[in-house]
Amino acid sequence: MKTLIIVAHPNLVDSGTQKFLKTSLSKMDSVTWHVLNQGSFDVASEQRLLREHDRIIFQFPLYWYSAPAILKQWEDDVLTRNFVYGTEHALANKELGIVVSTGDRQKGFVAGGEEQFTLSELLRPYQALAYKAQMTYLQPFPIFQFAYLSEKDKQRLVASYQQYITNPDFESFHGQELWFEQQLADKISKTKDSSNSQKLAQILSVIQDNRENLEELGWTLSMIKDDEDE
Amino acid sequence: MKTLIIVAHPNLVDSGTQKFLKTSLSKMDSVTWHVLNQGSFDVASEQRLLREHDRIIFQFPLYWYSAPAILKQWEDDVLTRNFVYGTEHALANKELGIVVSTGDRQKGFVAGGEEQFTLSELLRPYQALAYKAQMTYLQPFPIFQFAYLSEKDKQRLVASYQQYITNPDFESFHGQELWFEQQLADKISKTKDSSNSQKLAQILSVIQDNRENLEELGWTLSMIKDDEDE
Repeated sequence: MKTLIIVAHPNLVDSGTQKFLKTSLSKMDSVTWHVLNQGSFDVASEQRLLREHDRIIFQFPLYWYSAPAILKQWEDDVLTRNFVYGTEHALANKELGIVVSTGDRQKGFVAGGEEQFTLSELLRPYQALAYKAQMTYLQPFPIFQFAYLSEKDKQRLVASYQQYITNPDFESFHGQELWFEQQLADKISKTKDSSNSQKLAQILSVIQDNRENLEELGWTLSMIKDDEDE
Repeated sequence: MKTLIIVAHPNLVDSGTQKFLKTSLSKMDSVTWHVLNQGSFDVASEQRLLREHDRIIFQFPLYWYSAPAILKQWEDDVLTRNFVYGTEHALANKELGIVVSTGDRQKGFVAGGEEQFTLSELLRPYQALAYKAQMTYLQPFPIFQFAYLSEKDKQRLVASYQQYITNPDFESFHGQELWFEQQLADKISKTKDSSNSQKLAQILSVIQDNRENLEELGWTLSMIKDDEDE
């Protein structure tokens, strides 16, 4: 699976959040980090990029409950009618994900709260775009008040963000386990120090055993349930 | 009441809808027609315009379920935090209206329909902005498939659009009547031909009589209801 991250930020150099996200992906393969710059877009080359990837991510800070203007400019220019739904449906069966950061508090995004609407509601225009383009709309990945996150929360953010970008099945526990095993196996194959690589292999084997135990447990439970249903 | 219409259209010269809307207002007082042009905005002068008006209208064609990028650029530049909600609340108690045209069919904007979401849902970011700015959010004024409207529908559009722009109470029947009377009285005062002006005065007097009859009827009905409630 190849992922295209379309980064829309009018002041990228000063964004701690975007720097952090970019660093989180520094060792991930199959990820294209694509920054939008002011000016007109080369429509053909942007469309080619979209064609070449399976998961498309719009990544931006929330300005007035939407993306910064530059992403809308990109949409207006690049997502031509024929490309999206007129004749071609070039994005059909791809995925659309939204990584959105905001300085506002998470608890404000609710009826009666400071922002009055949930992020799911505010991001409807992107969901509608995904629908029209016959794409799968991924549940958005919000980052609230990055500047106030603890170190532990930031570590968690790295892992969940990496999965949102690269894990084909990031929403299920099973998919997350398989992804971690894959990451570990990759790391082992790249590690040159044999004692390190042995330790990692032991960890991987424990994780695999745990997963297999869990799968067996799940299988047993479903058997019991089938018996009860009869 | 003074109304500011902020027109965001990347290709205004070729827009039949925008030409039609502009002509509809050609004889209306207290309306400022303000076209956004590409390039950076003079923030101070835009903010002054906003301060000087009571009803603010965002008027645009729907591109990818939102306004064209230029309106977002204007929002990102002009609607600074302090101006809107930090220190000043400069827009508080003003009204925000949306005049949105679309080439898509009205019946597509529904769950299960071609566009999957209602315009009310898709325009949430503007509603959230109005809420944050302590503005009154007016029900949006949509124009579906203008090119296919009959002459009669276009005449109706003129009247309802004029009211959306200039009638302080366009949502109630009573407010609509008063507005029509006001328009007619203005026309009479400007008409130089005395026979024409007499005819208009007769029409006005009939409309006023009708309104008074209706008000009396409403009053009688509410008396009957009060009696029943006792």
